[in-house]
This record gives sequence, structure tokens and C-alpha cells, in this order.
Amino acid sequence: MATKFLGIDHIGVAVSDLNQATKTYQDLLGFSLGGHEELPARGLQVRFVDVGESRIELISPMRPDSEISGYLTKKGEGLHHICVRVENIEAALTEMKQRGAKLIDETPKVGAHGSRVAFVHPKGSHGVLLELVEKSGTGVHHG
Amino acid sequence: MATKFLGIDHIGVAVSDLNQATKTYQDLLGFSLGGHEELPARGLQVRFVDVGESRIELISPMRPDSEISGYLTKKGEGLHHICVRVENIEAALTEMKQRGAKLIDETPKVGAHGSRVAFVHPKGSHGVLLELVEKSGTGVHHG
Repeated sequence: MATKFLGIDHIGVAVSDLNQATKTYQDLLGFSLGGHEELPARGLQVRFVDVGESRIELISPMRPDSEISGYLTKKGEGLHHICVRVENIEAALTEMKQRGAKLIDETPKVGAHGSRVAFVHPKGSHGVLLELVEKSGTGVHHG
Repeated sequence: MATKFLGIDHIGVAVSDLNQATKTYQDLLGFSLGGHEELPARGLQVRFVDVGESRIELISPMRPDSEISGYLTKKGEGLHHICVRVENIEAALTEMKQRGAKLIDETPKVGAHGSRVAFVHPKGSHGVLLELVEKSGTGVHHG
């Protein structure tokens, strides 16, 4: 069975200052803003920017040891990851593993709003940190 | 009038070897392939990978002085740009300029398949090279 990729859920962008980045995307570039979330356990705050059915996710650190701090120090602001919607995340991970893909997460983690997510390692996808997401209610489970 | 952003057209990924990258995305990750294009004037060859209504565009050099060679040497393989579909690219550029956005192209260039494209400078969008595209037939022109 072939993995069904439904579309691009969002593109993650690492930024140093969330307020400034939000202003740029709203006031200078003219995008509409989506929701704001704080993820204190990961040291992150994010702001979604609407792009049709997809979104840009601006990600910034809340503290110096946040999940994004090392990336910002090493690489600076910019494109961080892409997140692709799949119909069935377990099937997608099983199939990728069988095909020999390099996974960070072999089983899904709980994401926002009841979704399930997993990451593919950038070393196995030509430098692209790839997140898979199965949205709650969009999965099709058989048996 | 607010710029209408219709969705993410594609995400550009810089890769060193197009055949290898194509194999990874098709054979290991399980994506379906789209079209292949050669752009000799820019020294590039690209392979599209389907992701629902959007695409990943694998971009690789055909010669050492290609448009992507400097990027690969400096940053390595990985996410290069995002391309957002707009309803009216001239209106979008005019509005962004008036708002104070930093543009690379103040007027649209001709892109693939009769589309028109323009780039926003990454220095003005927190490190993100942002391409705008108006597809032929999707624009709404008044007057």
C-alpha cells in the first residue's frame, strides 16, 4: 500500500523575536494571522500565518535552552522544517521504515489538537527536516 | 485591497545530485514524482515531487556556476525557498512595496507554463526566500 500524502500542512520558520516576525508577515507582507501557541515544555512559542489551506509556523525561543535555540545560533533565522499531512501516520512510518528511510520517530507523538506527528531525519532526506502529521478525524483506519 | 494568498505552490529544496535526491523522495519516502525540467540558462535542473495540491521542487546544479551552486557550497543541501500562489501578482507587489517590504523583483518575471513570478528578499522576511507566483488563468484582473 502506498503512503497517501494529502498536502503541506505547514512550513516551520525559525525566528529570533516572535513579535517582530509577526509584524513583518502581517504588516509588511500582508498575510493574515492564525493562532498563537505557547509550548513551555519545549521552550517555544509559535504564531501561525495563513496561506490558503496551508500555514507558515513562526517558531521562536522562550528561553536560551529551547528546542530552536541551537538551530538559531548555528543557522540563523529561516526555513526550519516542512510538515506534510498523511492519511495514516502509522502506515506511513511502517512503510518508510521498510523502504529504508531514516526516521527520528518510529512511532507517532501527540501533537496539537489531537493530531499525531513524527519526524523524518534530515540526514535521510537531503537536509530537509520533514514532519508527518495525521490530523484527528482525517485518518482512515481499517480493521 | 488586501493581497489574496491562495496557497503554497511549492517548496524549493537545494540538492547536489538530482538523481539521488529523486530516488530518496520516491523510493525511501514514498512520494509520487511530478515533472522534470531543465533550465540551462540558469544552470539548473529540477524535479517536482507531488504533495497533494502542492509540490516539493528538488533543484540541482547542471554546472559549477549555476544559480544554486553558491547556496549549496555555503549552506549545503536543504530547504531553499517557498513559493506562494497569489491571485494578482502586480497588486501583491505594489501593496508589499507600499507597506515597506524588501523585494528582489519589483515587477514580475515570466515563469514556467505562462506563470508570472517575483521574489521577496530573505533579509526582509526573517531569512525566508519567498517567491510569489500568479498562475496563468488564475489571476483576476479588473479594469
